[in-house]
Amino acid sequence: MPRISSKGLEMPASPIRKLVPFAEAAKKAGKKVYHLNIGQPDIETPSVVMDALRNTDIKVIEYSNSEGMALYRTGLVKYYASKSISLEAKDIMITTGGSEALVFAFMSCFNPGDEVIIPEPFYANYNGFAVMAGVKVVPVTAKIDNGFALPPIADFESKITPKTKGILICNPGNPTGYLYTKEELTQLRDLVKKNDLFLFADEVYREFMYDGAVPHSVLNLEGLEENVVMIDSVSKRYSMCGARIGAMITRNSNLMAAALKFAQARLSPPTFGQLAGIAALETPSEYFENVVNEYVHRRDVLVDGLNKIEGVTCPKPQGAFYCIAQLPIDDADAFCQWMLEKFDHNNQTVMMAPATGFYATPGLGKNQVRLAYVLNTDALRNSVECLEAALKIYPGRSI
Amino acid sequence: MPRISSKGLEMPASPIRKLVPFAEAAKKAGKKVYHLNIGQPDIETPSVVMDALRNTDIKVIEYSNSEGMALYRTGLVKYYASKSISLEAKDIMITTGGSEALVFAFMSCFNPGDEVIIPEPFYANYNGFAVMAGVKVVPVTAKIDNGFALPPIADFESKITPKTKGILICNPGNPTGYLYTKEELTQLRDLVKKNDLFLFADEVYREFMYDGAVPHSVLNLEGLEENVVMIDSVSKRYSMCGARIGAMITRNSNLMAAALKFAQARLSPPTFGQLAGIAALETPSEYFENVVNEYVHRRDVLVDGLNKIEGVTCPKPQGAFYCIAQLPIDDADAFCQWMLEKFDHNNQTVMMAPATGFYATPGLGKNQVRLAYVLNTDALRNSVECLEAALKIYPGRSI
Repeated sequence: MPRISSKGLEMPASPIRKLVPFAEAAKKAGKKVYHLNIGQPDIETPSVVMDALRNTDIKVIEYSNSEGMALYRTGLVKYYASKSISLEAKDIMITTGGSEALVFAFMSCFNPGDEVIIPEPFYANYNGFAVMAGVKVVPVTAKIDNGFALPPIADFESKITPKTKGILICNPGNPTGYLYTKEELTQLRDLVKKNDLFLFADEVYREFMYDGAVPHSVLNLEGLEENVVMIDSVSKRYSMCGARIGAMITRNSNLMAAALKFAQARLSPPTFGQLAGIAALETPSEYFENVVNEYVHRRDVLVDGLNKIEGVTCPKPQGAFYCIAQLPIDDADAFCQWMLEKFDHNNQTVMMAPATGFYATPGLGKNQVRLAYVLNTDALRNSVECLEAALKIYPGRSI
Repeated sequence: MPRISSKGLEMPASPIRKLVPFAEAAKKAGKKVYHLNIGQPDIETPSVVMDALRNTDIKVIEYSNSEGMALYRTGLVKYYASKSISLEAKDIMITTGGSEALVFAFMSCFNPGDEVIIPEPFYANYNGFAVMAGVKVVPVTAKIDNGFALPPIADFESKITPKTKGILICNPGNPTGYLYTKEELTQLRDLVKKNDLFLFADEVYREFMYDGAVPHSVLNLEGLEENVVMIDSVSKRYSMCGARIGAMITRNSNLMAAALKFAQARLSPPTFGQLAGIAALETPSEYFENVVNEYVHRRDVLVDGLNKIEGVTCPKPQGAFYCIAQLPIDDADAFCQWMLEKFDHNNQTVMMAPATGFYATPGLGKNQVRLAYVLNTDALRNSVECLEAALKIYPGRSI
């Protein structure tokens, strides 16, 4: 029997997926499980999108251009202009989700063995994309004490080697909800410039900003035109994760030319997803106002509720729809499994993501969990109640 | 300015794409250009598919499972059973096109530096997927004299090294249209078994079989359960290339487990494409009868027409919708460019793919072109007329 590859063995399993069988068993046993473990919002896709898809008159579902439909790319230029980001269509390549954008970016920028520095905790699938491109992930640790702000630049500098080729950030952050300040981004700019690195920024949560916070895109950092790659996606913005439409955006024409060859090999991004993306550009601003208001309520219910529980600390996020909570527990993986397997409160329980999966440094995140506030406020109130009850009786309580 | 990667530099540009500017210039100059260069069929997508998409009542375009929707995978089990291929749902992973299926298969099976043997001429994008996975393509040359039949097994054996980990075939073949016989596949089976290799088979043209020919799937080769990976796609079958839905199929559970980790990292295949795929399972058999009849007519018009031109040889394909023609020319790349740039016949010309891009051995295919018979018979008749007129006056005529 031929052996599978070392890449196949190295690929990390999803940190959430190992809990799925326990969640299924809990449901089979009749428990109500609140899914705060994943970022699948329950918000409806804008009606302009669904109407456009229902009214399409295409006769043949053809390939589009490898770089995406011209109409969509020019439409996105206007969208970014409305966010004060000045681009041309040639700077935008449509991809199959933000995932493919990051894979193409990694493969176009990194040689196997090169290193990328990422502030941890970070979105776990970055590990998988790094394995695919043969890139080594080097973490720099952000701390819960200051709400997961950018780690000191000296920490980054201490990790830079001749193999370091780039830095990857997520802003606003999954899993932290942290929003980088202009000062932090300026510090990163200077570091990137000084060391001639690529700066990758996953900005897919741009629309999810609270308390009047203003997002700062890496695309507006002066002097980084050749260094910056921005990763975007319609998945969260319009609640259409299944459309699988993202974008790789850079003003570096050499990089775009290389990435386009990867795009050509896979022919084209999905046609229906692009039609959805084009229609979504007409989403009325009230849609986002309603969504943001809803998420602010949800965040406040969840985060304020969590912080009232004895021994729990949860920084209040300014963006995205995740938070990291520190709990008085010995082992987040064991705790999250126990919540599904052994615990219920009025026949209800909560599924969370152990934060260990979001850290690359072994041992970190053992007393932290990630919660996504993607359910309605009643469900979130019940979830907080469950968690409070659980922490009172969890055998592995640490304090 | 940071440098792009060696992978980015190595990625091959599409062999067709370099002619695109010349085709655009020809059109701008008012010439009618017949596009026989690409496999984008003009056949309509089945109406059951378009109706299903127009009548969808989903409110949120959600992620599906990473391995694809359960309903679709069980539906495909029945589809394959109707083709005498016995599978379980667990053997089928839905992918974003056949392209992603092959990338996941390569990454799961090959370590960087491993070698894959491919009979040439072969689908040019295999080169790109090999670069992405760090795999070296080793060609074995098929000959036009016997219609691009499987090269002698001794030719494969002479290319096997300790780094050889697999063989990739396309059946029926793009770009040759050749359909492997049961005997040829049995020879391959013995070779693969003896050397403990993976056997990858791209069978996306299964429905396009002519003159009563019967397709033989590698999945029915006895004793190869752990070795075989079949790549499939709905793109050509239902004329829905833009759906971006394919499948990676294997009974090797270790391999499937590895591939699933790559699939999880990119979250899910496109939701709308899967809905289209599910609906397409209900396509009535008359659809395929009509399509096959149409392609037989097209093939006969094109191939018989080509063979009537002095100095032209074109084996008659039994499957797919491509053929390779040998022409009395010095250089296929120069000829194809000349056809667009310098030639017209009654203000019409033909865009073809130089066959050089389908060979990995330098220098091969210089007097061959690939033609896709994806246009109506009138267009094909005009194309043959153009080609005949062109060959009479082409300055680089070889005989």
